[in-house]
Amino acid sequence: MKPLADRVIVRAAAAEEKTKSGIIIPDTAKEKPQRGEVVAVGEGKTADSGSLIKPQVQVGDQVLYGKYAGTEITVDGEDLLIMRESDIFAVL
Amino acid sequence: MKPLADRVIVRAAAAEEKTKSGIIIPDTAKEKPQRGEVVAVGEGKTADSGSLIKPQVQVGDQVLYGKYAGTEITVDGEDLLIMRESDIFAVL
Amino acid sequence: MKPLADRVIVRAAAAEEKTKSGIIIPDTAKEKPQRGEVVAVGEGKTADSGSLIKPQVQVGDQVLYGKYAGTEITVDGEDLLIMRESDIFAVL
Amino acid sequence: MKPLADRVIVRAAAAEEKTKSGIIIPDTAKEKPQRGEVVAVGEGKTADSGSLIKPQVQVGDQVLYGKYAGTEITVDGEDLLIMRESDIFAVL
Amino acid sequence: MKPLADRVIVRAAAAEEKTKSGIIIPDTAKEKPQRGEVVAVGEGKTADSGSLIKPQVQVGDQVLYGKYAGTEITVDGEDLLIMRESDIFAVL
Amino acid sequence: MKPLADRVIVRAAAAEEKTKSGIIIPDTAKEKPQRGEVVAVGEGKTADSGSLIKPQVQVGDQVLYGKYAGTEITVDGEDLLIMRESDIFAVL
Amino acid sequence: MKPLADRVIVRAAAAEEKTKSGIIIPDTAKEKPQRGEVVAVGEGKTADSGSLIKPQVQVGDQVLYGKYAGTEITVDGEDLLIMRESDIFAVL
Repeated sequence: MKPLADRVIVRAAAAEEKTKSGIIIPDTAKEKPQRGEVVAVGEGKTADSGSLIKPQVQVGDQVLYGKYAGTEITVDGEDLLIMRESDIFAVL
Repeated sequence: MKPLADRVIVRAAAAEEKTKSGIIIPDTAKEKPQRGEVVAVGEGKTADSGSLIKPQVQVGDQVLYGKYAGTEITVDGEDLLIMRESDIFAVL
Repeated sequence: MKPLADRVIVRAAAAEEKTKSGIIIPDTAKEKPQRGEVVAVGEGKTADSGSLIKPQVQVGDQVLYGKYAGTEITVDGEDLLIMRESDIFAVL
Repeated sequence: MKPLADRVIVRAAAAEEKTKSGIIIPDTAKEKPQRGEVVAVGEGKTADSGSLIKPQVQVGDQVLYGKYAGTEITVDGEDLLIMRESDIFAVL
Repeated sequence: MKPLADRVIVRAAAAEEKTKSGIIIPDTAKEKPQRGEVVAVGEGKTADSGSLIKPQVQVGDQVLYGKYAGTEITVDGEDLLIMRESDIFAVL
Repeated sequence: MKPLADRVIVRAAAAEEKTKSGIIIPDTAKEKPQRGEVVAVGEGKTADSGSLIKPQVQVGDQVLYGKYAGTEITVDGEDLLIMRESDIFAVL
Repeated sequence: MKPLADRVIVRAAAAEEKTKSGIIIPDTAKEKPQRGEVVAVGEGKTADSGSLIKPQVQVGDQVLYGKYAGTEITVDGEDLLIMRESDIFAVL
């Protein structure tokens, strides 16, 4: 599957819902950005000038993104997220 | 029929409303993006710089798009969708 | 009458309010895009770069446009619509 | 009086409140665009690129504009309208 | 005092609150644009392209501007208005 | 302290809360722009074209700015304001 | 961790909640900008012209930023902030 423009497909890392000591974190404590792995990257966004702005992230990158970023899609039975590169904060 | 600018005409794939085991999925579980096939593509959007930004999708592409993307049109008795290319998330 | 910039004048096709079998379609079933014929086209929009972006539609084109697109005008007693070219979805 | 940038001064045509057969049209039927004559035109809008975008209308043009376009001004005791050229739909 | 960018300082003309026949105009009838004299002009606005867009108005111009345009300032005990050039409709 | 981009640091002049005759001005009469002295200036804003737009104000300029412009900061125990250059109306 | 585009990671300085004389400052008095140290900087934002606009801040800079700027992230158990460079007011 090839994302269009500046979109990126991300496999979310499983949320760690227990702390090391085994205490379950309540929902309100889990609003921080999410981690995931980039599994597909679009060719980039075409700017008004006509130039193609290539994405900075690459397939395999571990990334940090906003909790509510992107749209869920199902590929071969697996739940993935498709989002714009601008929804990604950083590469780990 | 020729879409204008960066518009694309898509034939929606029939929704699979039953799972393999034959269980009917209720409506609230079907909010995910839709699949479809591109049947016509516009010439592209003219940027402020005057340059033409050509679409990345092609006729025949299987695409994924937002559930509420586009406008329904009827061509030769068939219901199709006309949307902007930016409403398309990915090519399968 | 000469539309300014990227405006287009369209003569709406008469709505077909009966199906072939003679059944009257209720209002709620008629929200789909409308067909019409282009009767006048502006010279185009001047972009920020100073370049003129010429319209893609031509006089005589049969076009599809959003149900609520444009403004009604009366020319020589005839009701026409004036809209921006971006309100037009496709050329038939 | 010289309008600035892309502004245009228009003398509104007197509204025809009676039909030919002499029937008075109620207010709700008069929401269509208005006609008027261009009496002054600005030098044009300077785009971000620094290029001057010259108006397409000229003094003396009969124009069609939105019912609520522009601001009323009084010049030598006469009520005129000053509006942006983009408020004008077409030249008659 | 030197206005910055595309700002202009205007000395408002005294409002004529009586008609020639001496009748006092109530407030609701005075919502029309205001006249004034330009007393200072900025060097212009720098566009995104880096080019400087020079103002079209000059010191001494009699101008027409929106009733609620600008901000009141006091210079040497005199009340003046500072506004953007785009708030000025026309030069008289 | 070096402001970023098109930001400017201003030391507000003490408000003159008494008129010359010694009458205290109530709060509602003090909504006019404020005077201050520029104490630091950023390098300028980078436009979309990539060109750097240098500020027009300089350290030491007496400036006029909107009453609610900027954010209060404390530098070496002194209360200063940091604002964008566009919040400054004029140089005195 | 590498921030994307014009994002910056900042380690907030501990808030000084007591004045020198030991008086605790109530919450409402602590709305001023925050100080912190830049610990990572993105490569910059790509403008519409295709040119890369490099950040002005560098790793190690002491910066001042808005109280509500950025998103909290946890790196190696430490709470940091990731924000856009435009959220930073000044370099100390």
